[in-house]
Amino acid sequence: MEIKKGDYVLLLSPDEKTFLVTVEEEKRMGTHLGELNLGEAVGNEYGGRIYSNLEHPFILLEPTLEDRMMKVRRLTQIIYPKDAGLILLKTGVQSGMTVVECGAGSGALTIALASAVAPGGKVYTYDRSERFLDNASKNVENTGYGHVVEFKQREVSEGFDERDVDVAVLDLPSPWSGIPAAADALRGGGRIASLSPTYNQVEGCVEKLTDEGFVFIETMEVFVRNMKVSRGKTRPFERMVSHTGFLTFGRKALKKSPEPGVPTDTDDETQ
Amino acid sequence: MEIKKGDYVLLLSPDEKTFLVTVEEEKRMGTHLGELNLGEAVGNEYGGRIYSNLEHPFILLEPTLEDRMMKVRRLTQIIYPKDAGLILLKTGVQSGMTVVECGAGSGALTIALASAVAPGGKVYTYDRSERFLDNASKNVENTGYGHVVEFKQREVSEGFDERDVDVAVLDLPSPWSGIPAAADALRGGGRIASLSPTYNQVEGCVEKLTDEGFVFIETMEVFVRNMKVSRGKTRPFERMVSHTGFLTFGRKALKKSPEPGVPTDTDDETQ
Amino acid sequence: MEIKKGDYVLLLSPDEKTFLVTVEEEKRMGTHLGELNLGEAVGNEYGGRIYSNLEHPFILLEPTLEDRMMKVRRLTQIIYPKDAGLILLKTGVQSGMTVVECGAGSGALTIALASAVAPGGKVYTYDRSERFLDNASKNVENTGYGHVVEFKQREVSEGFDERDVDVAVLDLPSPWSGIPAAADALRGGGRIASLSPTYNQVEGCVEKLTDEGFVFIETMEVFVRNMKVSRGKTRPFERMVSHTGFLTFGRKALKKSPEPGVPTDTDDETQ
Amino acid sequence: MEIKKGDYVLLLSPDEKTFLVTVEEEKRMGTHLGELNLGEAVGNEYGGRIYSNLEHPFILLEPTLEDRMMKVRRLTQIIYPKDAGLILLKTGVQSGMTVVECGAGSGALTIALASAVAPGGKVYTYDRSERFLDNASKNVENTGYGHVVEFKQREVSEGFDERDVDVAVLDLPSPWSGIPAAADALRGGGRIASLSPTYNQVEGCVEKLTDEGFVFIETMEVFVRNMKVSRGKTRPFERMVSHTGFLTFGRKALKKSPEPGVPTDTDDETQ
Repeated sequence: MEIKKGDYVLLLSPDEKTFLVTVEEEKRMGTHLGELNLGEAVGNEYGGRIYSNLEHPFILLEPTLEDRMMKVRRLTQIIYPKDAGLILLKTGVQSGMTVVECGAGSGALTIALASAVAPGGKVYTYDRSERFLDNASKNVENTGYGHVVEFKQREVSEGFDERDVDVAVLDLPSPWSGIPAAADALRGGGRIASLSPTYNQVEGCVEKLTDEGFVFIETMEVFVRNMKVSRGKTRPFERMVSHTGFLTFGRKALKKSPEPGVPTDTDDETQ
Repeated sequence: MEIKKGDYVLLLSPDEKTFLVTVEEEKRMGTHLGELNLGEAVGNEYGGRIYSNLEHPFILLEPTLEDRMMKVRRLTQIIYPKDAGLILLKTGVQSGMTVVECGAGSGALTIALASAVAPGGKVYTYDRSERFLDNASKNVENTGYGHVVEFKQREVSEGFDERDVDVAVLDLPSPWSGIPAAADALRGGGRIASLSPTYNQVEGCVEKLTDEGFVFIETMEVFVRNMKVSRGKTRPFERMVSHTGFLTFGRKALKKSPEPGVPTDTDDETQ
Repeated sequence: MEIKKGDYVLLLSPDEKTFLVTVEEEKRMGTHLGELNLGEAVGNEYGGRIYSNLEHPFILLEPTLEDRMMKVRRLTQIIYPKDAGLILLKTGVQSGMTVVECGAGSGALTIALASAVAPGGKVYTYDRSERFLDNASKNVENTGYGHVVEFKQREVSEGFDERDVDVAVLDLPSPWSGIPAAADALRGGGRIASLSPTYNQVEGCVEKLTDEGFVFIETMEVFVRNMKVSRGKTRPFERMVSHTGFLTFGRKALKKSPEPGVPTDTDDETQ
Repeated sequence: MEIKKGDYVLLLSPDEKTFLVTVEEEKRMGTHLGELNLGEAVGNEYGGRIYSNLEHPFILLEPTLEDRMMKVRRLTQIIYPKDAGLILLKTGVQSGMTVVECGAGSGALTIALASAVAPGGKVYTYDRSERFLDNASKNVENTGYGHVVEFKQREVSEGFDERDVDVAVLDLPSPWSGIPAAADALRGGGRIASLSPTYNQVEGCVEKLTDEGFVFIETMEVFVRNMKVSRGKTRPFERMVSHTGFLTFGRKALKKSPEPGVPTDTDDETQ
């Protein structure tokens, strides 16, 4: 696959540092291993190399979803791939689906959601902060998923515009404040995911989900431990990230459901 | 979203047991909480309920990717969502991509890959065992992703038919045996993921990846710990899965790459 | 070391099951691998073997501290060696020290504490429940540490009799209820350890410790993951205990401490 | 408990930094929060305070076993309390026992072993390196356990002098090289513990232990995760130590053991 002007490329240095750059002719970039001429990447292939003026090879890689997420400009703590991966699997976000996200953060999770619903789906991302929205929006734009995401500045208490959405994702300091809005937006059977760093938030979140009639509520945390692998000297890394946040999942049950043998229009009282 | 005849539905019992079933008229199904008439689900909505003859409500849910994976008929240890999620994120599998998978297992990971490349992409899944392929194929067919996946019976030593594939995923007892075939099939910058339960396999895998010129090689393991959440009594679960397998990732660098100022056709010796 | 009548012996079966037994002449014991005559152990050595009537060898081992703890008769969830080990290290319990323990449980932690203070030290173990005290007392007696421990039936709100104790260990549903009593009993610089399964208990415990002037307060949890080791097939166990309890530690600072150059009897207001 | 000249004291600063110091009259010590006169500690009590010239209070604490271990002068990676605690519990080291340790490291584990066998027991610590022995010896001396430990410079291949020891602890790059010497030194039923950072060392260790007739062989790793606890904002720390080493334990079975009814001197062939 040939690299063109304007492409985003992940440069890998010989000592395994990475740089996410836009390829432009005559663009020069300084690194700890000398200066690169990014124009040399144009016409090269992914997997190929360019060399710094100090003759160090830098490998040209196509950014993955993880690279895109980890390289966003950060105004906030970002969602890690370990957490985003499980959110995608457990909410079942797929191409063509509609997702509401509240709490834009720096847009890292937005990118993962956009990638999963594309093509044909849509992510609506709400935040009260214009500054966060602007930054997240630019980060998403940079990945080429800008057309998949719509950003809206709004207090969560005002609710979401969308209805019958497949999945709602909350990353809020008070997750309970967004659950009624999510419940209104979700279709029956729709999934919700909420991320929170503290146990206290988790308690409040699960309590509110239960009150709002969500079912199959689960809370969990994900850890990743890296290993140093080399023949005869293989062992785990000595340090790891031990906490990002807790993930809470649920599914929307419909509040009105016909009792067996009871006409639908009279069963309100029994609910 | 209305449930139709033939739909796959995840039934959730009041005590949070789940059943993945096909909805058919007049289909009866026994459970620990009484008998259900699955025909009652037809015309109902996701999030709605049907009742057993003992008056227990069962909630009708749309199966997520996780549900699909966990409910496959198992002939082998399956890939868990925690691992599949990270594989999707780190390999950057997207709608429209081409993926080669070797080692069909029970098809759980195939389902995750098919879901990620759909629509417009394709997964080619190889296995030496006809029995495993048959089972995996049926499991994938059940999810509605049958058209996205092609199954091939083959020894990995014979190589893969595809070229310029975006991502290769190996789940082999001797992962090194599949790496040359994966290297041939992948395009420059393409990603590889390998799953193995033992350290010894990981050592051999990383060594072979390095020999074959893969770069940015990483090995890691993923843990998920569940929490019991209830107001004033929140605590982690007392038991967890502490090992499924190690995940190794790499990216294909091109072997031939022009040295600065050196014509391509004479640089073989210097590689 | 020769085994004598009345000794406690840990029997290890060929399939690695363990039995903690008292050796007596003519005592017969049924196992899944046949019947043993425990009298044959008398005069044998630790590390030696006796054989069942089905000719299976059982190895005669001296019970370790871990064996003693894990083999107590259980009326409650017991403290695990992973937690007890860290408690001993962090509280610095040593031969000759005085320890107050509140919440006898089944006596597993009492055994660890008794072993650490012997000879010359003393453990005072309080519980409100006569039934738990009786069981814990018998369990401790069985290890030979009976003379090191004194059991007292008491509500924690009534306080402890001891003063100037080195270490206090609390295992209470409401740990804060025991902290004032522990603060009164501990000498300056004395250590406290509290065990609790929930986050909520931990919050209340840390808050109360802070109020009572404890310093260097730390909370943590300990995990142990076992490995299956065999040449070429080494990997972690697939399941593990993921939660027993949280451990909170602190040290008693003296409330009244002379300000530099200020007589002790006038400095109350400034504290 | 009154502090005397020459005592080791752990100073805790208001921002929870710790300093392990010897108290001497007129000894001045600079800190990030001003200068302390350690002489002021003399006659003060543990739990009391001294003040820096900037009026910051430093609390006077008695060093625990953990403090002693963590504050050794380090020439090597030290054994962590989480690992030392489990070693003590699983080997059952008690007051009065004899322990052989090979691989002195920086003496941190030696201190834990010395503390556990005192009074009346003895630790024999071997190392090939005079430099490590000197450092470990000084570190142990500083804790007041010098009389409990004997240091010997020796290649492990030359064996240990002691016989009938209760516990042997190995911390060696090639743990298998020390196992025959440990097997010779241990009495029947004696326990061995070995620490190694890599899986490869663990494989070799377990293989050799099996060859040498050790039984009840277990390998495990210990993790500690700390929590930030404050009312309404409680959550785990964001980073943790994810690897120090693997712990392998075993117990010595006697090689020659009389078959039932068979004289000892003729049973070699049946073993």
